[in-house]
Amino acid sequence: MTLLVTGTIAIDSIITPFGELESCLGGSATYFSVAAGHFTWVFLVGAVGEDFPEDYLKIFDGRPIDTTGLEKRPGSLTFRWKGSYAGAMNEARTLDTQLNVIAEEPPTIPEKFRHADFVFLANTAPDVQLKLLRQVKSPQLSMADTMNYWIQNNRDDLLKLIDHIDSMVLNDTEARMFTGQDNLITAAADIVQMGLEFIVIKKGEHGTLLMTKDKQCFVLPAYPTADVKDPTGAGDSFAGGMMGYLAAQNAFDLTTLKKAIAYGTVTASLVIEDFSLRRWHTAARPDIDQRYRQLKEMMQFK
Amino acid sequence: MTLLVTGTIAIDSIITPFGELESCLGGSATYFSVAAGHFTWVFLVGAVGEDFPEDYLKIFDGRPIDTTGLEKRPGSLTFRWKGSYAGAMNEARTLDTQLNVIAEEPPTIPEKFRHADFVFLANTAPDVQLKLLRQVKSPQLSMADTMNYWIQNNRDDLLKLIDHIDSMVLNDTEARMFTGQDNLITAAADIVQMGLEFIVIKKGEHGTLLMTKDKQCFVLPAYPTADVKDPTGAGDSFAGGMMGYLAAQNAFDLTTLKKAIAYGTVTASLVIEDFSLRRWHTAARPDIDQRYRQLKEMMQFK
Repeated sequence: MTLLVTGTIAIDSIITPFGELESCLGGSATYFSVAAGHFTWVFLVGAVGEDFPEDYLKIFDGRPIDTTGLEKRPGSLTFRWKGSYAGAMNEARTLDTQLNVIAEEPPTIPEKFRHADFVFLANTAPDVQLKLLRQVKSPQLSMADTMNYWIQNNRDDLLKLIDHIDSMVLNDTEARMFTGQDNLITAAADIVQMGLEFIVIKKGEHGTLLMTKDKQCFVLPAYPTADVKDPTGAGDSFAGGMMGYLAAQNAFDLTTLKKAIAYGTVTASLVIEDFSLRRWHTAARPDIDQRYRQLKEMMQFK
Repeated sequence: MTLLVTGTIAIDSIITPFGELESCLGGSATYFSVAAGHFTWVFLVGAVGEDFPEDYLKIFDGRPIDTTGLEKRPGSLTFRWKGSYAGAMNEARTLDTQLNVIAEEPPTIPEKFRHADFVFLANTAPDVQLKLLRQVKSPQLSMADTMNYWIQNNRDDLLKLIDHIDSMVLNDTEARMFTGQDNLITAAADIVQMGLEFIVIKKGEHGTLLMTKDKQCFVLPAYPTADVKDPTGAGDSFAGGMMGYLAAQNAFDLTTLKKAIAYGTVTASLVIEDFSLRRWHTAARPDIDQRYRQLKEMMQFK
């Protein structure tokens, strides 16, 4: 099945205890689609400016990622983000954000993408997410990411978006903020009750929690890696692996969701082992499958 | 097999968003032994003062817990702790500590306890833990808990203790502090290399990490409960369930360790559902086994 993603294609500058990288490839849609492209056919929708280096697009070569929806806008500049990580690297400190093309009209979804079966709306203003979703005919499963800013400032838009999507992915702080519930299980249940089929709560190095409409719960620790160099894109790589697997299976029952979350855990654990998307220069599907088996083994008990 | 625990029997006062409880039963050895008593025969060693209410001992009635080693000291007062929890209740704020009997000579281990097969040294000064351990003949498995204070102030004593024990249980902050490693996997590996068979790192609501001498890793999320009323004793109840199961199986190979950690996860998840040890007034082994099966189900994927 086909999987549409809308989001950013960015130029990042990253500082971690393991080094610095200036003006490298980043963006939610980039991380998402490369992770998802290990599983299924991906329709990428996003916009960059005329400053965007042509050779950054090479990351998509040889992958089942259709970049017809990647708009290069003359006169515009690419979204830029600069951040640093310290200590356990659980949170980025944003040093600079230049919205540029992101502050303009969102890109139009190409006609041939509008029959996508699965849709992922990466983090942006919820009214923009809804506008994008409305261009898609009748997806089997739509999922949106969001962030604290929209929860605090555009709550009504977010609730309206929730009326039209099937699921959300958000982190534990956002889930608590959204519901005012300190207990994460209660927070998860409260969000699902707003009208979703299921939600996935990301807890960074602590793993993931799934809660379905009928209160089925699934918990998965992160893949325990000693080799974290740059956590940028972990969340979008998680979502990409998860949605990519769901789309490939054309299903989102509990059994498939559990496996999808485990695949997302694995794609996230790989991408953070190097700066930007460099890990994908070498890591491929067999590496994903091997780590998937390791993760299963690591958390299995009789 | 028999399981010896040395630790505190305390009088706690607890404030959580769900209420307050004045002068209730607490203490590491108390929480540990009641959890462990669901699995195996427990030798309890600790001291209380003459102020200790006799009827608090009723918690041990009808359980396989030998309280011969519970010393009641005339002229002394019981260890008292007052703490409060807020928000997600991940950390206690200590409001008052009265060491009392804890500041005196540690109790002597009764002769008939000295052949214990498994030993758990609950948190106290590492030189005291070593003194206690030396009274035990030749346990198959010894495990110690510790805390940030000893890591910072009694590091040499702690390293000396590690030369004599087989395993440790500590929380993620302590593991990072002990090793200076931000990455938890690296921290875990570093501590095991100090000379242990394995260590267990507790991450509170985020679950547990096991690392063995030969770098085998096991990760388990916490049991996702919406019903946390008082997190006091969660760590000791975890250790009690884990060590209780190991002692009952008379083994600590990887397969048994994984199951033991899952049982510890379950005993911890039960005790926090009510104040003090009240949950154990009703919860028994069938409740533990049922939740164990639920946990397994919740984290199983194909």
